Amino acid sequence: MTDNACKVGIAGLGTVGAETVRLIAAQKDLLAARSGREIRVTAVSARDRNRDRGLDLAGIEWFGDAAEMAAKADADIVVEVIGGEDGKARETIDNAIAAGRSVVTANKAMLAHHGIAIATAAEAAGVWLGYEAAVAGGIPIIRALREGLSANRHSRVTGILNGTCNYILTEMRQTGAPFEGVLADAQKMGYAESDPTFDIDGIDAAHKLAILASLAFGVRLNFGAVHIDGIRDVSPVDIAFAEELGYRIKLLGTAKLTDAGLEQRVHPCMVPKQAPIAHVEDVFNAVVVEGDFVGQTLYEGRGAGAGPTASAVVSDIIDIAAGRAAPAFGLPVSQLVDIAPAAMAEHICSYYVRLSVVDRAGVVAEISAILRDLDVSISNLMQRARDPGEPVPLVLTTHETREASMMEALARISALDVCVMAPCMIRIESL
Amino acid sequence: MTDNACKVGIAGLGTVGAETVRLIAAQKDLLAARSGREIRVTAVSARDRNRDRGLDLAGIEWFGDAAEMAAKADADIVVEVIGGEDGKARETIDNAIAAGRSVVTANKAMLAHHGIAIATAAEAAGVWLGYEAAVAGGIPIIRALREGLSANRHSRVTGILNGTCNYILTEMRQTGAPFEGVLADAQKMGYAESDPTFDIDGIDAAHKLAILASLAFGVRLNFGAVHIDGIRDVSPVDIAFAEELGYRIKLLGTAKLTDAGLEQRVHPCMVPKQAPIAHVEDVFNAVVVEGDFVGQTLYEGRGAGAGPTASAVVSDIIDIAAGRAAPAFGLPVSQLVDIAPAAMAEHICSYYVRLSVVDRAGVVAEISAILRDLDVSISNLMQRARDPGEPVPLVLTTHETREASMMEALARISALDVCVMAPCMIRIESL
Repeated sequence: MTDNACKVGIAGLGTVGAETVRLIAAQKDLLAARSGREIRVTAVSARDRNRDRGLDLAGIEWFGDAAEMAAKADADIVVEVIGGEDGKARETIDNAIAAGRSVVTANKAMLAHHGIAIATAAEAAGVWLGYEAAVAGGIPIIRALREGLSANRHSRVTGILNGTCNYILTEMRQTGAPFEGVLADAQKMGYAESDPTFDIDGIDAAHKLAILASLAFGVRLNFGAVHIDGIRDVSPVDIAFAEELGYRIKLLGTAKLTDAGLEQRVHPCMVPKQAPIAHVEDVFNAVVVEGDFVGQTLYEGRGAGAGPTASAVVSDIIDIAAGRAAPAFGLPVSQLVDIAPAAMAEHICSYYVRLSVVDRAGVVAEISAILRDLDVSISNLMQRARDPGEPVPLVLTTHETREASMMEALARISALDVCVMAPCMIRIESL
Repeated sequence: MTDNACKVGIAGLGTVGAETVRLIAAQKDLLAARSGREIRVTAVSARDRNRDRGLDLAGIEWFGDAAEMAAKADADIVVEVIGGEDGKARETIDNAIAAGRSVVTANKAMLAHHGIAIATAAEAAGVWLGYEAAVAGGIPIIRALREGLSANRHSRVTGILNGTCNYILTEMRQTGAPFEGVLADAQKMGYAESDPTFDIDGIDAAHKLAILASLAFGVRLNFGAVHIDGIRDVSPVDIAFAEELGYRIKLLGTAKLTDAGLEQRVHPCMVPKQAPIAHVEDVFNAVVVEGDFVGQTLYEGRGAGAGPTASAVVSDIIDIAAGRAAPAFGLPVSQLVDIAPAAMAEHICSYYVRLSVVDRAGVVAEISAILRDLDVSISNLMQRARDPGEPVPLVLTTHETREASMMEALARISALDVCVMAPCMIRIESL
């Protein structure tokens, strides 16, 4: 034990916190070699001291209150793995920074809402803020954007940022089962929370996207500007049509610089089957980055779980201990800019549309006329089933179209007598 | 212009050197924001001053000799993009380090042969050695291994490390054309050198693999220990059988820790079609890393070309300018260890074997008996064509087998009367 050790306090001993304690113990020599200092857990906090976590906490100071630990523990770095965008987690981080300690966190919700305030406070205090674990789990995507690709101006960042959704969509495709059944199974298997809202409604992915957008485009985090649709409405029939058309359906988070401003959007997408991201299955995450010099690069791995998250947490500890951390968002906060959000109405892409129309003569002509009037060009139209006088699916894809035109077309089509159900629309992301 | 600027000398104005000059000019503000200092090219060297490279070199000192530039230029960092494992490139790097300048290089051949000596000299001089550009072009795989995944012990690193070979194998699969024809086309299109030996014989991939192995396993670079087979013997018929069996053929460079020691090998592999790396096509590179906490992560992008390589070169410049570079191989050179190389005879995998045998009764029994005697277990056997008395292909795959047993089996099978051609063997890499 040297006095040169880097002392770490861990706030929260859930699966990630406990795994972080285990990792630091298991890789003691490796971490010392890589950081040039002993990495030592000196304090932990959790509410219940009596729970058996299978950890050897001998010689480690115990705190029942994380915020108190952050203020008082003998620690250079405080790891916040409590979770939640406010409350105790926020108090813990604020106290750590106020006490001159660096912070490592996996808390994407808090960063999405308060990242700029926290980074500003860290800068003012001369401490570091690491959050490799907050986005895409073990995949070192924060370092890739902040350091590995730092010579590039980026045009787009897009990715599968939520493992629960990707697992559900993969299962739906492989089994043909509907959303509700697959979700229930995923909950039983622990791949989805008992309250799955944050995951399946796209909010978790949106938190991560807002962080990636800030890094990629050098902008102030703007979570409020993210357009969010989840996967509740994705149906087996659309998954089957996607296959037939050469696509896979993925929930993507995408930040893209366009003439209209900065798009930030989370929604189900059809991606071409030949795109590598189409083959990212189950709980895996992947991120595609487009830089002006480097072109397209892709990063894939486990987006959650104790091991991958602890791996990311400790990578930040090592870099802070070694004195080679970078500013939280790649630039000093004062140099982050604001780019006007692009309205979804201005979004341009190809669209997949599935209608339920009465099978009778002239239907296609009616719909085609509406699309023509709004300058929406049809790329593909499929009307497979025949059932005169009854509703049948009519599927079409379009060439690139402004979202406003597409929405107006769908409104007019919905108003037709022959259209018996609200149209289903899925955006096609070119990749 | 502040005196705080980070001054860069660029040795070599080929495609990469010229693109680096262009990138630094094009992204001036971005680089200053990300590194906290102006990045300024102060010197360049190339042999021919009169060639039009489309660069504005006003105010930049010109040297006809790179080694002289490295010794004398007003530069904090020398970028070596001359190439070649010895000669002028080596002299340039040595001079730069001796003069107290950090070095950024894309030179994998030199690193594979002299990386330890160069890193030792850099450490002694207190300067940095960056080589993100040396492996997998624009993919920030060096940073991923050295920093992003630094909390892990790795069990395997494997990847498509040579874009030329991947292009040729992709074309062969898509067109059914034989190796020689595809190579000739690739040469015409500039995807293969006029002397393609380094690429197609696997040497370039082996250089890169030795570097990755050092980073992943904390070992002293040992290029001499790499087993190298190129792609000259991959035939369209094997590519077709691979498809039928659910595989793709890729030239992989693999470093793997086994009970027998450290395997380092470059050879054609069959990889399962469902593995993401199977879908990495054309000139793209990809690397899969397996860490004990993070699990499997994958990195994909353009492995060569002026833009991606310049992106990687400048990412190193930024980190050195910002004062956050890491030791070249992740650890001080003195802490790198030696792990005994594992002999290929000890390698264990499943094998694909294609024989050309006379179509007559009892052939399968003869071959099966040899395999049984050597404890080689057959997983799949296909004898499709019938042509009594004439040679037909007999294809089999095995369960996991020691390479020594497989080689002995192939020797005995070759000696059979019915075996009319040397067997073709391709290892199956589980992924």
